[in-house]
Amino acid sequence: MNRQKLIEIIKERRSFLCVGIDPDAAKIPQHLNQNEQPLFDFCKEIVSQTAPFCVAFKPNIAFFEQFGLDGLATLDKLMKFIHQNYPDHLLLLDAKRGDIGNTAAKYAHFAFNELSADACTVAPYMGEDSVKPFLDYEGKWTVLLALTSNKGSHDFQMTADEKGERLFERVLRISQTWGTTDNLMFVVGATQGSLIGDVRKIAPEHFLLVPGIGAQGGSLSDVCEHGMTKDCGLLVNASRSILYASNGEDFAAAAANEANRVQQQMEEQLRLHGIIA
Amino acid sequence: MNRQKLIEIIKERRSFLCVGIDPDAAKIPQHLNQNEQPLFDFCKEIVSQTAPFCVAFKPNIAFFEQFGLDGLATLDKLMKFIHQNYPDHLLLLDAKRGDIGNTAAKYAHFAFNELSADACTVAPYMGEDSVKPFLDYEGKWTVLLALTSNKGSHDFQMTADEKGERLFERVLRISQTWGTTDNLMFVVGATQGSLIGDVRKIAPEHFLLVPGIGAQGGSLSDVCEHGMTKDCGLLVNASRSILYASNGEDFAAAAANEANRVQQQMEEQLRLHGIIA
Repeated sequence: MNRQKLIEIIKERRSFLCVGIDPDAAKIPQHLNQNEQPLFDFCKEIVSQTAPFCVAFKPNIAFFEQFGLDGLATLDKLMKFIHQNYPDHLLLLDAKRGDIGNTAAKYAHFAFNELSADACTVAPYMGEDSVKPFLDYEGKWTVLLALTSNKGSHDFQMTADEKGERLFERVLRISQTWGTTDNLMFVVGATQGSLIGDVRKIAPEHFLLVPGIGAQGGSLSDVCEHGMTKDCGLLVNASRSILYASNGEDFAAAAANEANRVQQQMEEQLRLHGIIA
Repeated sequence: MNRQKLIEIIKERRSFLCVGIDPDAAKIPQHLNQNEQPLFDFCKEIVSQTAPFCVAFKPNIAFFEQFGLDGLATLDKLMKFIHQNYPDHLLLLDAKRGDIGNTAAKYAHFAFNELSADACTVAPYMGEDSVKPFLDYEGKWTVLLALTSNKGSHDFQMTADEKGERLFERVLRISQTWGTTDNLMFVVGATQGSLIGDVRKIAPEHFLLVPGIGAQGGSLSDVCEHGMTKDCGLLVNASRSILYASNGEDFAAAAANEANRVQQQMEEQLRLHGIIA
């Protein structure tokens, strides 16, 4: 999905919600355990019911790996299900890969060709040749970690160099010489408040993938105040608050309700910023 | 495998060689394609033939992922094969994982419980809570990226802060407050020459996993001059130079020869540094 298409579906659906698919065995509604494929059925229902309210789905590979090979087979099936049935949703694999070029090319092949992802999260620590093999895929997105939503983001990402440039700012600046606004996004945590404004000084046009609202406590209006562009420029992720809105038989309806609630807040922000009428 | 055992096998086998298992479809000997499981058979033969000359095996998950779910099933089988048949070899999964604590715990479970790894490579960008879930596993090793062997290592790892401390040095210093010399190693590329000496100023006792000799061009004697400790303190990795020593029917014997050649160089270094008699 290219940038123009992404902006179109944001305006049409009046939403820039990304639904993070992080299935947790302990939190999946108990009644699904009678099914043959509880994990797949859970994810499929979440996708189907929240689709009208979101523009992207973000399965996190770790949450499937935890179930071993069966979990990875489920991820494969889910990726193909989304790819085939929801072509107008960005399919983003959250994998945070990063290795030397030779190896990165294999990871990119797995994400984009094997799993049909439109986008993949990548870690910047190993530099240009670890990121480039992802950017080399025509029509795919590389979503590079810049400023993450967790406490540990302060350990290294905030460290300033001799000229006062912090590591996340250096990542934003230098990686723009590797990719463009058409194939490179950045992860910027919602929990970082006004720092999103600092990100925008360096990357005024790039799409940002923003985790950290919902369970992690970030505020949507803060994110929009500091991060929204004339094209929206944001994909805001929510995972646990939607997936586990209910753990009863009504889990999918509850997820849809929660996604709808967030979508309405997003619609308001899009209107407030003059992106939709 | 604990630190004491690791030092023991290094002295016994007179080797600190780690054989990196990065199978490449285009380079696997053609005659194996007649087999039912060419990928597994290739890796199994490499492991069996090089085992006398090395102390660790390091399958790189990306090279299995490139073959999709079948490749991951082969990795699973290979990890269990090594775990069962070579308990006196460190089994190191090269995966370079890094995500928030909640997610990192799933990755750690996959590496250590599902795949039976003794050790796993981890990326530091997201900080303490992304690394801790790996360190929490009793008897397992976390192998943290510090200074990698690739060109891109200069993009961020070498950036100095206001006090002149470079990022890789900060990673080395701060991560030592999270783990100990008994459960934390660092990746330091052999291509970085005397920088390994700078690493030793900050991490004098930690084991270092050193990629970059062989195909990537680093020198074993340079690595030992700057990096060897009284306990050896090094695992030096070679992958392509061993795996593809021959692409004929003699591939396994050629791999054994090459591993033996490296082992002899290592024995000389261990003697030179007074670690063995």
